[in-house]
Amino acid sequence: MKKIACLITNDFEDSEYLEPARAFSEAGHQVITIEKESGKTVKGKQGKATAKIDKGIDEVNPQDFDALFLPGGFSPDQLRADDRFVKFSKAFMDENKPVLAICHGPQLLITAKTLEGRTATGFKSIQVDLENAGVNFKDEQVVVCGNQLVTSRNPNDIPAFNRESINLLK
Amino acid sequence: MKKIACLITNDFEDSEYLEPARAFSEAGHQVITIEKESGKTVKGKQGKATAKIDKGIDEVNPQDFDALFLPGGFSPDQLRADDRFVKFSKAFMDENKPVLAICHGPQLLITAKTLEGRTATGFKSIQVDLENAGVNFKDEQVVVCGNQLVTSRNPNDIPAFNRESINLLK
Repeated sequence: MKKIACLITNDFEDSEYLEPARAFSEAGHQVITIEKESGKTVKGKQGKATAKIDKGIDEVNPQDFDALFLPGGFSPDQLRADDRFVKFSKAFMDENKPVLAICHGPQLLITAKTLEGRTATGFKSIQVDLENAGVNFKDEQVVVCGNQLVTSRNPNDIPAFNRESINLLK
Repeated sequence: MKKIACLITNDFEDSEYLEPARAFSEAGHQVITIEKESGKTVKGKQGKATAKIDKGIDEVNPQDFDALFLPGGFSPDQLRADDRFVKFSKAFMDENKPVLAICHGPQLLITAKTLEGRTATGFKSIQVDLENAGVNFKDEQVVVCGNQLVTSRNPNDIPAFNRESINLLK
């Protein structure tokens, strides 16, 4: 059983949180949602999902988690305006722990300056941002880099994202 | 009187469209809103503003406009997933026409690969993206580069943004 930190705030892409979180739980892992404050509830941009926040960012330490999960939508761009979420994300990349980022999720990793020389994918709109950050961008359902970083493009890629993420967490 | 193209879609930052558009109109200019289809109405992310779309992107030619206005919020990131809006934005930069971009507005200019060597600002969350795109980033209310590109950071900067934009359009 792995402890997976999930950074999430309002306007996340509903299915990109809901479906991987369910798959990770069914595989025996624990997903802990993290935002500014614990106890609040954040809403998906499609109005189809909500997420109860388990921990506030000031209550957690990256060392207490085995992996990082970054769902997409407008959530990652808002979180990266707050240095605490950037620093938290950076720790997982620096320590070579599994990082599972879909759609706009890699935006946090760009701001954390952790993607130079990595192979990855992401939502079409952030392709140039990823390339400018030094990423070898692949237009593929799922990309696994260095047996550590799993990225996917959009909600259609969720089955491949879940498969490779769960494989990596074994 | 200048004709100003405004690229805008849902979840724009309400005040960043409303206030500059009003100021530009009061200064005697014409603001033409452009999205995928004319006639539809797009909504601001705060629920405080709507914008009726004047023209569909396939109906317009950059050569018919004197300047480009890019309000922020989640609008620019969605528009840059569609190559037509990227190409349209690029034309104004290539032809050295006034480009007025606030908050997330410069995201369209990043994807259009038009910012290398320019001095600019933008919303805090896109600072690293701008720097990676070759921008000399300034944390200032408003930055005017080459008497052509006006950028600001967030809604608090709107008065400075309007002042320098209107000055440039003279």
